[in-house]
Formats: sequence, C-alpha cells, structure tokens
Amino acid sequence: MTLRYDTISFLSDYGLGDEFVGVVKSVIRSIAPEVAVVDVTHDVAPHDVRAGGLALARSAQYLVPGVVLAVVDPGVGGNRRAVAVEVGDGASVLVGPDNGLLAPAVAMVGGASRAVELTAEHYHLQSPGPTFAGRDVFAPAAAHLCLGTDLEDLGTPLPVHSLTPGVVPVSRVEGERVFAEVLWVDRFGNMQLNLDPAEIELFGPALRLTAGDVGRNVRRVNSYSDLDSGELGVLVDSYGLVAVAVNRGSAALELSCMEGDSITVELGGSASTTPVQLQPKRSD
Amino acid sequence: MTLRYDTISFLSDYGLGDEFVGVVKSVIRSIAPEVAVVDVTHDVAPHDVRAGGLALARSAQYLVPGVVLAVVDPGVGGNRRAVAVEVGDGASVLVGPDNGLLAPAVAMVGGASRAVELTAEHYHLQSPGPTFAGRDVFAPAAAHLCLGTDLEDLGTPLPVHSLTPGVVPVSRVEGERVFAEVLWVDRFGNMQLNLDPAEIELFGPALRLTAGDVGRNVRRVNSYSDLDSGELGVLVDSYGLVAVAVNRGSAALELSCMEGDSITVELGGSASTTPVQLQPKRSD
Amino acid sequence: MTLRYDTISFLSDYGLGDEFVGVVKSVIRSIAPEVAVVDVTHDVAPHDVRAGGLALARSAQYLVPGVVLAVVDPGVGGNRRAVAVEVGDGASVLVGPDNGLLAPAVAMVGGASRAVELTAEHYHLQSPGPTFAGRDVFAPAAAHLCLGTDLEDLGTPLPVHSLTPGVVPVSRVEGERVFAEVLWVDRFGNMQLNLDPAEIELFGPALRLTAGDVGRNVRRVNSYSDLDSGELGVLVDSYGLVAVAVNRGSAALELSCMEGDSITVELGGSASTTPVQLQPKRSD
Repeated sequence: MTLRYDTISFLSDYGLGDEFVGVVKSVIRSIAPEVAVVDVTHDVAPHDVRAGGLALARSAQYLVPGVVLAVVDPGVGGNRRAVAVEVGDGASVLVGPDNGLLAPAVAMVGGASRAVELTAEHYHLQSPGPTFAGRDVFAPAAAHLCLGTDLEDLGTPLPVHSLTPGVVPVSRVEGERVFAEVLWVDRFGNMQLNLDPAEIELFGPALRLTAGDVGRNVRRVNSYSDLDSGELGVLVDSYGLVAVAVNRGSAALELSCMEGDSITVELGGSASTTPVQLQPKRSD
Repeated sequence: MTLRYDTISFLSDYGLGDEFVGVVKSVIRSIAPEVAVVDVTHDVAPHDVRAGGLALARSAQYLVPGVVLAVVDPGVGGNRRAVAVEVGDGASVLVGPDNGLLAPAVAMVGGASRAVELTAEHYHLQSPGPTFAGRDVFAPAAAHLCLGTDLEDLGTPLPVHSLTPGVVPVSRVEGERVFAEVLWVDRFGNMQLNLDPAEIELFGPALRLTAGDVGRNVRRVNSYSDLDSGELGVLVDSYGLVAVAVNRGSAALELSCMEGDSITVELGGSASTTPVQLQPKRSD
Repeated sequence: MTLRYDTISFLSDYGLGDEFVGVVKSVIRSIAPEVAVVDVTHDVAPHDVRAGGLALARSAQYLVPGVVLAVVDPGVGGNRRAVAVEVGDGASVLVGPDNGLLAPAVAMVGGASRAVELTAEHYHLQSPGPTFAGRDVFAPAAAHLCLGTDLEDLGTPLPVHSLTPGVVPVSRVEGERVFAEVLWVDRFGNMQLNLDPAEIELFGPALRLTAGDVGRNVRRVNSYSDLDSGELGVLVDSYGLVAVAVNRGSAALELSCMEGDSITVELGGSASTTPVQLQPKRSD
C-alpha cells in the first residue's frame, strides 16, 4: 500500500487517564493500519486552546511531514467548524477544530495553502452523540488523508483567510522597560517569555525581573549550569526565545508565576559580578 | 512473517510513572517484533477492576481486531486464574486476570467462544517472584497469540460460563424517579450514568437531578455548547448513555460526585425556559 | 533499508505534560523512519539521576537489544559529557549524559565495551540554545546509530573506565540487624529494598521492620495475596529483591516511607502464627 502520508502527529487535551487517546488511535489504525501515530502531548490543560496552540507551534518545525491531528475543543458539537488545513503546498495537513488552536503552527510553517470544513459525513463515524469529534470526525479525516483522500473530498472548501486566528501575545516596550508575558511553564519550572533575545540585547548581562510584587536582579547566561545551584537567571531557550530559569530548581516557583502572567524586564544591578549576595528576595 | 493478529490493545492500572508498561511492551516486541501495541489507557485507578472493565467495554467496539491485553490484577500471584478468552469466533482474544475485568467487554462483543487458563509454563518468562504477571505471563501469551499459537496451546480449556462475571450496576425505577449510578467521571468532569436515554425519555427536556443532598433543575440538550457557559445539563454522550455535564466546566465538581455515587433523575421544573434563574444551588 | 538496530528504548524525566518526548520522537522518525521507539518511562522525577538509573537497570534485561536513549540531565549545556556507550560487544548502545544515569544498566548487562563523547557536531541539530540536548544531540545520535553509523563516527573515543559510575546504595549488617534502603516506591506503594533475599534468609518467616520511629512485626510471604487484606509483609519481588508490601494497600503509606529512606530488618515476633493480633501500630 502506498501512503500519501505515513505519520500522524497527535496533540490533545484528552489526558491519558481516560481511554480517549487510545480510542482515537484505534480508529486511525482501523482505517490506515500502516500509519504511525506520534504523540506530541495529550496533557494540554483541559480546554486550554492557547496552551495547545503554543505547544503545537513550538513543535511544528520538528514534526515529521504528514498529518497533524490537534484536538483542544471546548466547543465540540456546537457551531465551531471542524477543519483540515493544508500547508507547505501539501507537505502537511493540520486537522482539528477551527478555534485558533491550529493557527500559530500554521503561521510558523508559512501559512495555509488550502482549507476545508469537514462536512463530508460519509467520512465520519456514526455516533450516538456529538461530543467526541476526535474519534468520530477528526481521526477518520486524518486517516483518510494518509490513505490519499484529497483534502477537498473531505468537505467544503474554505477561504484560508476565514480561519480563526490564534492569539499570541506580543511584548511591549515602555521607556526602558520591556513588558513580557509567560508563554509557557515547562515541567522543570522554566518560563518561556514572548521575547526575542534581540529585544533585551541592549540591557547587557545584568537584568532586573519584576513579576507581581517580586523583583529580582539576575544574570543573563548561556545555559542552566552557568548559574549557581538554585540561582535565578535568564537565557535563550532551545526554541530561541528568552526564558527565566533556576539551575536545578523552578523559576515559576521562585517568582510565583503561571502561564499568562506578566513579567517586566529592565536593566539590572550588578548581579553579574557578585551574583549570590546581590539577590535578596525583596518587594518593589 | 505472517501474523495471526497484528495489534495488541493494552489497558492496565500500571500508570506511566514506573517502567511497568515499557517492560511489558519490550517483552512483547522481543517475542513478536512486528506487532503494534496500542495503549488504551494505563491510568485506571490502582486495583480498580470495575473502572478498568468499564473503560475496556467503552473502548471495545473501536479497538482493532486482535489481542486485547488487560491487567488490573489485585490478586496477582494468588489463586485467581490467568486467562485468555476468545470472542467473535477468533476475531479477537482478550488476555488478563479472571477477576471480572474482561467480562463487560466480552459481553459487549457478543460473548466468549473459547477460553483457557494460562497454565502452560513454557510460555511464561521465568521470574524470581510472582508479582508481575503482566510481564511474565500475560505479555508472552499475547505475543504468542499474535504469532499464531493456538489458544489451547497456552493452557487448560475452561468452560466459558465459568469465567468470573463483571458487575455492572443497573438503574432502578421507583414511582416517577430513576435511580442511577455514576459509571465514569472523565477528565473534563463529565459524568456518565448507567442510563439508556429511553429510560428518561418520558420526562422531556426539563429534569431534576439529585446527588447526595444537592438537587438541581437542568435541561436536556444535544451537546455541551447548547448549555450556557458554566450551566449544568444532561445529554446523550458519545457512547449512547446519559451523561451529566457542565459547558466548559466540571459536572463532577458541581455536584460533588465520584464514580460509583448515586444520582436520582426525575421530572424537573421549568428550567428549560429560564435556565439561569431557576438553578439556585439548594439542598433537598 | 537494512537497520543496524530497529528499536530505541527511551527513558527520561521529561514528563508527558510538555511536548519534549513527542519532539524527540519526531526527530528520531525524521532521521530513521523505520525505527520503533519503546517508551520505558518519562516520569522519572525531574533531575533524579539515581531514580532514572535504577529504573533503567531494572528494565535492562527485558529491553529489546538495540539503542537505549536515556535523558535525566540536570547539567545539560554545562560541562558534563554527552556519551554513547556500547555494551554486549555491540548488541546494544546506551546514549545519554555521562552523569551516572547509564552506569547501573551498563553494569547490569556486563559492562561497556566501547564509549564515545558525542562531539561530532554535524550529527547534532542546530539550535538557538543548548538546553534541549535530548532533541539536538541524543536523539540524532540514537537515530544514526540505528541507521548504521559507527559509534566512533559520533565523536571522540573515551576510555570506558572514565565513565561516571552510578551510586547504588549497599546494605549493611550490624549484629543481628540489616540496615537497608528503599530503592523504589512503585505506583502501588510497594517498596523495593537494596536487599538480596539471602541477606534475610536466616531470620526465617517472622521479621521486624523499623522505619523512622515506626516498628512492625511482619510475615515473609510469597505474594501479596498470601497476606490478609491490608496486612503489611515482606516478599521477593519480580526483580529478585526484597520488597515491603501491603495486600491491596500501600506499604509506603503504611510506614511513611519515600525512596532513599532507611529501613531496618531483624528477627521478628511471632507474627507468622497470629498475624493480625500481633501487628498493633506502635513506636519503638
């Protein structure tokens, strides 16, 4: 059997505690047994479209060309559209709800070339209720795309500009301060900010971070281990964005931050030369 | 190599925090490298045979025909039997402990045609202790079934009526009330009840739910998004059973319910026309 | 395509909440699409090199021969070496940081035959930051090994005796007491000790355990179900080590123990004949 795509990269907020992910994979394997499913993650916080979209965008450049199945779908069964979006002139197709989840990844890989609403019901599984579109609508679409079904056979063509855009926060400069936002707190407590390193280049290696009522002088370094154990610092992360980290500790815990929180970056004190002594925990 | 079955669907209460699942898959791949393992879920609550059996039954109709490996096995090493149960005249074989875990799924697909106790020790891995039957007994049996080993080579034939039945609670009607039970609380807090939609058809769209000392008038709707944001309601879920849900929220939290709790359904007030105002939180 | 190795067994502390594991697998599949990745576990506690090393050692004898990718790497981006270690005269290769993580598994399978530091940068992914070596250094190395790249093409040969040893605690006998340590608490609360059964053979079936200020008389049994429901006891686990367990309960909870805690084993009271009455919860 010749496949049009041999890989489905799968991201969702289904968690692994229920059988949702397993059932979706079983449906895919029943339709397209030769296709490999690579799990991106399924622990996006329930209904957190923004977090799912950011995780997909971070992953996008590393995913195997093929089909991307993404389901964070609080509006399932309602009037949000189920879509398939082609990118890279057919190199890959993203399948999921049209609620902004797919948009950051689509933008990351150069934009959509074609899109359809998944209205062709003979490709859906019949179901007693409309609440599990991952199983009944998206998984069959992803599997049939792998088998070679043309995008436009899956439903009604959509103008690509009609797709719901993603909302990615932008940083803001005011005087000598940069106002940033925490895009992502990872398992280790590292906090990725919506800042390109160029935006804080002028400040040099000594920075001051303010999050809520906590302010800290920190050093800019190259990797965690350039920091003393337990020291808070700033570095360029593996995605090329500015991140706040603690060597062998959690920056999110240290600054009491969550995803979506604001962080201000400005020129710091002389933390870089005497790092430990000049970092008392103090309020602004 | 020609395989008798090319897929093992695998459910357990092993969790993913230890290496149990990885070791079982390694054992399978060592014996039958061409076989694909599809994880149904491994986060069944430890030793919760009922929850594992229900998850397997919900999944059954979607699983790829082949071998189903299911391990929730509080009696491991004791005198519970290790079994393989053939269904669909050989379309699939379920492998696991004979403690009621397999029974709901077996019933769901039409009953067992043959069964054996896994007594043929030359198919087992040798082990210093009897506490990891998933690795030492069940995984090798599943893998050898895929390779074509006949069911009856794996051990002693059992009369299928001797298999331990599953215990699935049935609903009960008393006067104008239906007494139901929460079968499943999913990641999103949706609660599946042991109710067929026909059992509450006569009540119409306005229902009253009582769980413990909390009573609520709710609407019956088609999908989450027919409810206002945060509104509690009743719908037919993706498995065809009655479920209690909150749009973009958790019904289990709203009603303080867990799996196994009782819920009473009866004719409701006029919630359907003025949904928000008529849903004060009140005790009965 | 002929592969040198067709399986990568993958263990990490990445967790499944972020997309780290998915991205690593995507990188592997992009380079070596025919290779299967078997997840050992990804829920090693963040930065817990000891726990990761023990999990790998427990798994080692069951893993499919091939490449083992192991990443618990608190020193990522610093001066710890990234290495590939050949064992079994080429039967398998372990890839990961040289921080002691690989050592217990290497020892378990007979020691290293060759090793290299992964310094050949043309095999690395280019990256804006050095914090994700799993994606940028280790995954490509593992994939290229599968494709047939020779170990020594990946970097600089290292004397195998220069590899960082693992630290596995040894038990200690003092008079009639054996001082042991909790190596592992599994999902079910079973506690594996660093004790070979021979070390407590002389005590017979009636033992006394002391953990912190809690002392308990217990029986030595063959499997969980030889204990009464809720009874604490000692058995040989599925890895051949002494473990403390509660039938259908958690020994770790019962004795308030964590990994790394000390437990003393000595000759017990007459618990074996009247197990229930002689097990009051008492302090020493």
